[in-house]
Amino acid sequence: MNDLLITSPANPRLKGLTGLRRRRVREAEGRTLLEGFEELSLALDAGLVPTTVYYCPDLMADPDSQLEVVGQAAEGGAETVRLGRAAFEKVAYREGPDGFLAVVPTVTRTTADLALAADPLVLVCEGVEKPGNLGAMLRTADAAGVDAVIAADPVTDWGNPNVVRASKGTVFTIPVVSDSTRATLERLVRDGIPLVAATPDTDVEHTEVDYTGPVAIAVGAEKYGLSPELLAAATYRVRIPMVGRANSLNVATSAAILLYEAVRQRHR
Amino acid sequence: MNDLLITSPANPRLKGLTGLRRRRVREAEGRTLLEGFEELSLALDAGLVPTTVYYCPDLMADPDSQLEVVGQAAEGGAETVRLGRAAFEKVAYREGPDGFLAVVPTVTRTTADLALAADPLVLVCEGVEKPGNLGAMLRTADAAGVDAVIAADPVTDWGNPNVVRASKGTVFTIPVVSDSTRATLERLVRDGIPLVAATPDTDVEHTEVDYTGPVAIAVGAEKYGLSPELLAAATYRVRIPMVGRANSLNVATSAAILLYEAVRQRHR
Repeated sequence: MNDLLITSPANPRLKGLTGLRRRRVREAEGRTLLEGFEELSLALDAGLVPTTVYYCPDLMADPDSQLEVVGQAAEGGAETVRLGRAAFEKVAYREGPDGFLAVVPTVTRTTADLALAADPLVLVCEGVEKPGNLGAMLRTADAAGVDAVIAADPVTDWGNPNVVRASKGTVFTIPVVSDSTRATLERLVRDGIPLVAATPDTDVEHTEVDYTGPVAIAVGAEKYGLSPELLAAATYRVRIPMVGRANSLNVATSAAILLYEAVRQRHR
Repeated sequence: MNDLLITSPANPRLKGLTGLRRRRVREAEGRTLLEGFEELSLALDAGLVPTTVYYCPDLMADPDSQLEVVGQAAEGGAETVRLGRAAFEKVAYREGPDGFLAVVPTVTRTTADLALAADPLVLVCEGVEKPGNLGAMLRTADAAGVDAVIAADPVTDWGNPNVVRASKGTVFTIPVVSDSTRATLERLVRDGIPLVAATPDTDVEHTEVDYTGPVAIAVGAEKYGLSPELLAAATYRVRIPMVGRANSLNVATSAAILLYEAVRQRHR
């Protein structure tokens, strides 16, 4: 490959890259960062076309085979730029970078852009704050075969590099949208999709409701759970039984338990 | 309270505290760090007696009510030391410390120390590397009412501050032990506890086996899964169905899905 080569960590182009760690810049430019070989491969296979792929053979575990991904991105229309080690390490946001970093368009879809199949399984994450939790839920949603993930009243944007990272790139392979809680609820009502809301304040266990038809499962913010607005609109309010002392499950863990109860019922 | 007050971040006593971030020091001293009001409260309620509680009212969200925990620790026999803000911030390992940090004895139990009730539900984590995953599994195990968690061939020690943190302090409330995979397997056989091992290499789904009697559920290292030794010894090998592109669940997520399938069956 006869790509552009940047070796100086002071190259002004690299400064623009680190700017994308800030949400304001991501939103203004409509772009974000995708780091890692595995994540990039997954996103390319899902049809994502990066604007630019930065790569550093010196940092790759297996340059001979991994460089093919750079070729694949170039064929899809991405610019490819080779970086020296010091230059790459300046722009990487992970510890122990693996030599792959791409600039990709951010997800800016709303519920209006969402096309749902019959009997969809939808995950609604309302007000979730931690990028790691949002990304973890996407990874689980991918495995569970969820049709769409809606960030309702989102605190974190889908383009947050830590969401991208924790999602293992699935943020680019699952239909994900962002919208207000109100618009989300309106959409579910219009499509006749029952809403199952997770909350500690009910006696109905999560295994007691029917997930075999169209269904949306909602989990709320780490500290405060779901909003009164969403809870009031829910078709079912369910709790995950807990017997321990800490008496709280991580939000991504709760989502996994609910999604896999739905998978269990739908597979029967 | 007329406690010792340290205001200088250079106080030599504080240096000893930051040393506990290193595994070698933790193991040599048999002590580790427990940070955070919620985590300390939980551990004290479970009967843990810290060696020392360091506290900083300036950093507390609500000193009037939260200081009671310091009194509770002192009554239990802990030394209590008040720190100035700069001194506390030097020893805290979290961003945004909340004014509570305790030195506590580490868990050094093996399977020989484990007393199990009839029909126990046991979680075996083999070779798990990331402290955050190990801690997350403890938090879920606590909620699911697991009788014991065994770290088999552990890579991370239970005293790792990030395990303690991610566990929300449940590492001090659940019976946790560490042992070799071999000793773990021997113990399960001796007690007649069937072992359900999670692996992608089987056609048996995790919902197809019976978890209503005594049962141990095993999950393996992030990258490589369970060891051949453990898989060969397992009573059942099960897979969690996955339909997505990334085709992998986080190990703590897998543990949650398996544990809550067991909870579902045992609650019926």
